[in-house]
Amino acid sequence: MTTPSGKIFLVGLGPGDPDYLAPAASQALAQSDVVIGFRAYIDQIQSLITGKEVVSMELGHELERAAAAVDSAYAGKTVAVVSSGDAGIYGMSGPVFRVLTDRGWNGESPAVETVPGVSAMQAAAAVLGSPLMQDFCAISLSNLLTPWEKIRSRLEAAAQGDFVVALYNPRSKRRQTQLLEAREILLKHRPADTPVGIVGDAFRSGQRVMVTTLKELEQAAASVDMVTIVVIGNSTTYLHGGKVITPRGYEEKADRP
Amino acid sequence: MTTPSGKIFLVGLGPGDPDYLAPAASQALAQSDVVIGFRAYIDQIQSLITGKEVVSMELGHELERAAAAVDSAYAGKTVAVVSSGDAGIYGMSGPVFRVLTDRGWNGESPAVETVPGVSAMQAAAAVLGSPLMQDFCAISLSNLLTPWEKIRSRLEAAAQGDFVVALYNPRSKRRQTQLLEAREILLKHRPADTPVGIVGDAFRSGQRVMVTTLKELEQAAASVDMVTIVVIGNSTTYLHGGKVITPRGYEEKADRP
Repeated sequence: MTTPSGKIFLVGLGPGDPDYLAPAASQALAQSDVVIGFRAYIDQIQSLITGKEVVSMELGHELERAAAAVDSAYAGKTVAVVSSGDAGIYGMSGPVFRVLTDRGWNGESPAVETVPGVSAMQAAAAVLGSPLMQDFCAISLSNLLTPWEKIRSRLEAAAQGDFVVALYNPRSKRRQTQLLEAREILLKHRPADTPVGIVGDAFRSGQRVMVTTLKELEQAAASVDMVTIVVIGNSTTYLHGGKVITPRGYEEKADRP
Repeated sequence: MTTPSGKIFLVGLGPGDPDYLAPAASQALAQSDVVIGFRAYIDQIQSLITGKEVVSMELGHELERAAAAVDSAYAGKTVAVVSSGDAGIYGMSGPVFRVLTDRGWNGESPAVETVPGVSAMQAAAAVLGSPLMQDFCAISLSNLLTPWEKIRSRLEAAAQGDFVVALYNPRSKRRQTQLLEAREILLKHRPADTPVGIVGDAFRSGQRVMVTTLKELEQAAASVDMVTIVVIGNSTTYLHGGKVITPRGYEEKADRP
């Protein structure tokens, strides 16, 4: 008797607008027997997964969702695990590979195929202008899985390296101080008028966009929540026509009138 | 007489596989009178732009392409400027916003709409496993538009901050030393057995994947070219089943057997 060989698709749904769901993502959903994900993302793709086995869970159960997916795949099923944005950026790829590692996965069976999607950071950047046009960092301010001291040292490093910084999970009801600490760290290294873009629900209904400065971020912080992305410019970033613009090259800023 | 109001779409084509071309990108191309881009990208979408005015240019003429797009838009046309990956990440968004700034653009006319796409870094990560699952940096090693000293200081900062690092433009016929310098800088801060993934032409015909370590990167460097992405793990990244895996949380590595 041969072992049934299942498959796991790690599917990034992108920003949530169906116009940004890649054909590869739709195809992976169509090929799957089981679809697993956070309830809100499942709701979003309901029309594409009619008749399939659906495992829908609340936030904060990532390892349980991953374990359910791995169980189904070892049982021979084809499983799609969905994430918003890109499954590989603060998404479900991590928990699934962690569970596979724990189970002694051989790298081949079940097969794992990742379908990348447009991440929240990229959707926010698209709305803001061209903030990510030079070297950049993505930093999550959530200290649930990473010690705050580690996050602080990354903010220091990002500030010293003059990186454009995209902040994920910047602020929640229970975590209100981290964004202000991040602002203080960056202010030690770059000017108070450094442009900052804040985008909530990019490409979704209810999209919110605010353009401010590092100095004014203190006042703007109240409008920042967990699903907001905060993009902080580097030393060359400027505002023009309401857009946050990082020029591609370093000499370009000097050329500007 | 009213001024004609054109429009510019900044379109990311993603990794190049049509299965990754978002419906929004196809729609933007369909709505455009003019399509402007590097010849290889234009060839890739030929079937979608039949009958349209096409401005196809060689690499290294980004500002000329941007100026041609802005000219057409000010003349009232709808123009799609195409980039591979995401237009906002080392793509055409920068040059276009730079030309618009120089022309005193009012932020409204011509309208500018960005259609983000899956970047090369994300495509590489999808092929490798889950390398970008913690805070990460994107750094271009091309010193054409950024002084090498600036790039060096970013590599130092990224190493100090224990970021996962994705290197763009890592090596070309004329630039062979930068990747080795980057390796040296990272080796000062993380172990020699730190996993490194190298991916060329992700999701395209001719896709090449190599998994190695920071120590062995010196030997592997010969296979790295301009269109390769090099992803260097952080202190928690490990190899399992041929995949480069960064666990989502810091405590997870300690849990592994």
